[in-house]
Amino acid sequence: MEYIFEYEFEVRDYECDVQGIVNNANYQHYMEHTRHRYIQTLNLDFMTLTNEGVILVVAKAELQYKKPLKSNDKFVCRLNVQKEGIRYVFYEDIYRLSDNQLCTKGKFEIVSVINGRLGVSEKIDKALFG
Amino acid sequence: MEYIFEYEFEVRDYECDVQGIVNNANYQHYMEHTRHRYIQTLNLDFMTLTNEGVILVVAKAELQYKKPLKSNDKFVCRLNVQKEGIRYVFYEDIYRLSDNQLCTKGKFEIVSVINGRLGVSEKIDKALFG
Amino acid sequence: MEYIFEYEFEVRDYECDVQGIVNNANYQHYMEHTRHRYIQTLNLDFMTLTNEGVILVVAKAELQYKKPLKSNDKFVCRLNVQKEGIRYVFYEDIYRLSDNQLCTKGKFEIVSVINGRLGVSEKIDKALFG
Amino acid sequence: MEYIFEYEFEVRDYECDVQGIVNNANYQHYMEHTRHRYIQTLNLDFMTLTNEGVILVVAKAELQYKKPLKSNDKFVCRLNVQKEGIRYVFYEDIYRLSDNQLCTKGKFEIVSVINGRLGVSEKIDKALFG
Repeated sequence: MEYIFEYEFEVRDYECDVQGIVNNANYQHYMEHTRHRYIQTLNLDFMTLTNEGVILVVAKAELQYKKPLKSNDKFVCRLNVQKEGIRYVFYEDIYRLSDNQLCTKGKFEIVSVINGRLGVSEKIDKALFG
Repeated sequence: MEYIFEYEFEVRDYECDVQGIVNNANYQHYMEHTRHRYIQTLNLDFMTLTNEGVILVVAKAELQYKKPLKSNDKFVCRLNVQKEGIRYVFYEDIYRLSDNQLCTKGKFEIVSVINGRLGVSEKIDKALFG
Repeated sequence: MEYIFEYEFEVRDYECDVQGIVNNANYQHYMEHTRHRYIQTLNLDFMTLTNEGVILVVAKAELQYKKPLKSNDKFVCRLNVQKEGIRYVFYEDIYRLSDNQLCTKGKFEIVSVINGRLGVSEKIDKALFG
Repeated sequence: MEYIFEYEFEVRDYECDVQGIVNNANYQHYMEHTRHRYIQTLNLDFMTLTNEGVILVVAKAELQYKKPLKSNDKFVCRLNVQKEGIRYVFYEDIYRLSDNQLCTKGKFEIVSVINGRLGVSEKIDKALFG
């Protein structure tokens, strides 16, 4: 897979649990933040969209945890996106920076809820796929 | 699907984001807590296992978000578990209590890492499947 | 101090860090949730107030950490509130249930921002102090 | 106050609540991460210390919330530290980068628990105060 965007992070200790590794739920946070940063580069802002009545909602999330991230690890989340019907499917993979080890693979199916109903936002379509 | 365990929660406002709904990652928290509560009823404790060198690790997580939970919602997480090879597969579904609406479906494939290597813990096997 | 409200919790493993104890920031979550539950008993809802343009904001927080909570601990957060000028001062103390040990003391000074300006909401005043 | 260390952040949307501003507890996270980054520059690592039986514990936290951080805000946490008896007192202030506005002031009193008892670690003393 080719990636079209990436965003760098480092593990914060409060994200680690008693096993000394990042708690599973936090990978969703990392991937959400990467998506929001990506759409910002397209002049789409999550908060602004929300206030305009266009609610981007995750319909399905799949995460494969391959190697755990630990305290102090620096890592990058790399992203691509495809359109499947009315869904935007984001593929997001996390790599540890020290050795480029693939740590987590994510797939997020996202739908738009516009004024309360499933729909397609032309503005988003154009921004994502030109 | 039949369920073998359930655990009740209520939404806390800090779990909601600017859309006024529970942030996606928090559903993993709810489901993790339900698993930990369930294995406690079998006299397995997550912290104790960790200290004994038996690390239960989520290898794969799938979540389907059907209806969002909102501020003040009370809900229940219902669980079942199967063994598939060396994996424990937990099915966990979240229902809003006011109307028994299915809100989120979860599937978690969990493996045991024993002293640093993938393995099967007899103690856990016996506790989960008798 | 006399308390006028209390709310029960139990520690969730994802709230614990690598030391095996609840991360400091989570006590603010517990205390926030207790405040929101309390004002609900007075028919004040945090989300509704927010939507009406009355933003309750913490201006100052003080927490004294006396004994750490651990995995599986059940505990209660007990609360009282006083008015000091335009501030509502909430005193919130967390006790471990197994032995009634005082674990954390909290003090929260809260102000109302009404349509963007510091103010006093009669509705809240009446609800809190009759 | 002079500062001796600073660390840059940006707000992530999952840190914001329904008011569209960063939830209060997250400022503790930012300040904790800044402390951990700071002591790393002195070759002290929070995880390593924990594993060696030296537990750094927050005994008291005070936070003054002056201006809320919002989605997309970039900010910096600036830090200084003093010794008062057996306590390390960290002063940590958060400034919004766009206009250098002071947003949050923090004061954290930290003690060392060494093999289960309050104590002073020479190693930490030397690292912090030379």
